[in-house]
Amino acid sequence: MNETVVDAARLRAFVADILVAVGVKAADAAITADVLVTADLRGHESHGVARLEQFYVRPLQTGEIAARAELTVLHERAATLALDANNGLGQPAGARAMEMCIARAREAGSCIATVRHSNHYGIAGYYAMLALPHDMIGVACTNSAALVVPTGGRTAMLGTNPIALAAPTARHRPFVLDMATSVVPSGKVEVKARRGEPLPEGWAVDGEGQPTTDARATLERLYSGQPGGLMPLGGMEAGHKGYGLAVMVDILCGLLAGAGAGPSVGFGAGLGQESQAANVGHICAAISLEAFGSAEAFKASMDEYIDALHAAPRAAGSERIMVAGEPEAERTEQRLRDGIPLHPQVAQGLQALGDEFGLACLF
Amino acid sequence: MNETVVDAARLRAFVADILVAVGVKAADAAITADVLVTADLRGHESHGVARLEQFYVRPLQTGEIAARAELTVLHERAATLALDANNGLGQPAGARAMEMCIARAREAGSCIATVRHSNHYGIAGYYAMLALPHDMIGVACTNSAALVVPTGGRTAMLGTNPIALAAPTARHRPFVLDMATSVVPSGKVEVKARRGEPLPEGWAVDGEGQPTTDARATLERLYSGQPGGLMPLGGMEAGHKGYGLAVMVDILCGLLAGAGAGPSVGFGAGLGQESQAANVGHICAAISLEAFGSAEAFKASMDEYIDALHAAPRAAGSERIMVAGEPEAERTEQRLRDGIPLHPQVAQGLQALGDEFGLACLF
Repeated sequence: MNETVVDAARLRAFVADILVAVGVKAADAAITADVLVTADLRGHESHGVARLEQFYVRPLQTGEIAARAELTVLHERAATLALDANNGLGQPAGARAMEMCIARAREAGSCIATVRHSNHYGIAGYYAMLALPHDMIGVACTNSAALVVPTGGRTAMLGTNPIALAAPTARHRPFVLDMATSVVPSGKVEVKARRGEPLPEGWAVDGEGQPTTDARATLERLYSGQPGGLMPLGGMEAGHKGYGLAVMVDILCGLLAGAGAGPSVGFGAGLGQESQAANVGHICAAISLEAFGSAEAFKASMDEYIDALHAAPRAAGSERIMVAGEPEAERTEQRLRDGIPLHPQVAQGLQALGDEFGLACLF
Repeated sequence: MNETVVDAARLRAFVADILVAVGVKAADAAITADVLVTADLRGHESHGVARLEQFYVRPLQTGEIAARAELTVLHERAATLALDANNGLGQPAGARAMEMCIARAREAGSCIATVRHSNHYGIAGYYAMLALPHDMIGVACTNSAALVVPTGGRTAMLGTNPIALAAPTARHRPFVLDMATSVVPSGKVEVKARRGEPLPEGWAVDGEGQPTTDARATLERLYSGQPGGLMPLGGMEAGHKGYGLAVMVDILCGLLAGAGAGPSVGFGAGLGQESQAANVGHICAAISLEAFGSAEAFKASMDEYIDALHAAPRAAGSERIMVAGEPEAERTEQRLRDGIPLHPQVAQGLQALGDEFGLACLF
């Protein structure tokens, strides 16, 4: 069966229509659709429209996620905001938190916001990138349901807790780091399991906490609450560093925000065995370039810096030295031009949802 | 030859006296000595008093580091500070930058400071930890001379660019993450080379950009400008993540601060072939817990969170699950009680410096 190719703008409108059909306000639906389609454009299909039904539509229908929640302010200072998503969709909460940060950073120079009582919000990089057109550096992190085993342990205690930072450039594509603090996200284990391939050493541990290469068994453990799980970034050699980074993200997104943390972050979205609200937490920050000097000078220095990395001597067999965000930006340009390829199962699922809600055919 | 054991307070005073003898102001000398001795107390000997002569005393004598530089403010907002160390010692610049951040965060809720024209400042964790007694989360990063090879490259383009974050607790030892964004710091390669042991796979690449286990050859490459160097965190499997983190630190500490970045950060301290100022850059941030709710509630939740990690099921063969900062805190407690063990060469070197400057015998 072949891939179905779909235009990004059409896909975005279709996803938004489905969200509106299950009670989401139009503005929130537009943001959520944009986050999901942006993930597909950037090549992070595991965080894209493939998750629409299971992560968002069904939980919105059951009320597990509140369709019409408002983001409320708990505490505020010149350079801080503590926000509550009130169990609404993570995407509008994350995007609005960053927009509020940007507004404050325009005066104070920087601002940090936390969001509690939220839900899975897709790619963290999306929120960091919102700062770019404002000549600001954007930072975004989120915690997530426990899939990662701490160093010395054998059960998942931490989410893949990504760290994202975006920095503007003039001529080059912006720097956009968006990385799980595990060696790999769970989506890569899914792909290996689907293909019947073994995992590389250092991705996962089994129920005894020992390294394993069994993709299918690892995948089953991830969503069942059984011991075993993903290894933190650094793997067998330096996994304590990825473990430390995952805890750092949890301290900021969970404990500082007043959200869940560690194994108490719900799987939400019907994936796990818990029925209460997911209580995911996020943190974001905006840093104004003008507060540190000239934004133009910063962006010119970014270009020179990236030039130097591009021109650095390459390893034998290496074709390019790239900078974080470049592969995703190139893929976005190509997919905006040629359309987004969808796995046939994903296309079928979307069409079935469209039929369910009486929408016009997408394909 | 046996280790020499020395009392921390005596060692601190001795180091400060030597710095004063080469022209450093007493207050700056006290801070610098405290940073170096704190590294030894925490077990980071590679960043401790062993570096006093080569990294600080000789460059202060030649004027490579300015002994009486003042930290100046370039730009300021309610929640940002852009500072210039004017080629002074990194330690007083880093500590004062964090104290200024803390003062601003008390009002604004958070503050971020950059420091340019600085020098190697030792363990980043020291500066992050300054926030702890103020019921704040502290963040500190620095860039450093290029030792790390980007993914796909074969020459060092990035420093080991550490990330540190400290968060207060009530009952437990504080969380203190302080990690190089390389798989290992260069000091660990030095230890392997000294012992004649091979490097584990995934620590370093050779002059062709291929993985190598040759410790001695790697060490020679690190400080000679030859191709080859350390691998970024993640190693062969996920080194693009450590590479991305190292660039992130460089963007903040180098480009945002207006300091050197990438291979333009000097080795300073006579280690490398460059004679100009090192132009190291730092960034630090303070986040007030009270700005996000109750500091007491946060610290209680930290305790519970750490309790859960301590109590998590352990891997076969694992004795404890620890949290970042715990091994270092335990070592500090033991060394404050029993004294700091110094390698005989380090003890001899310190005594020779004491003799040179007419100080009383340390041992």
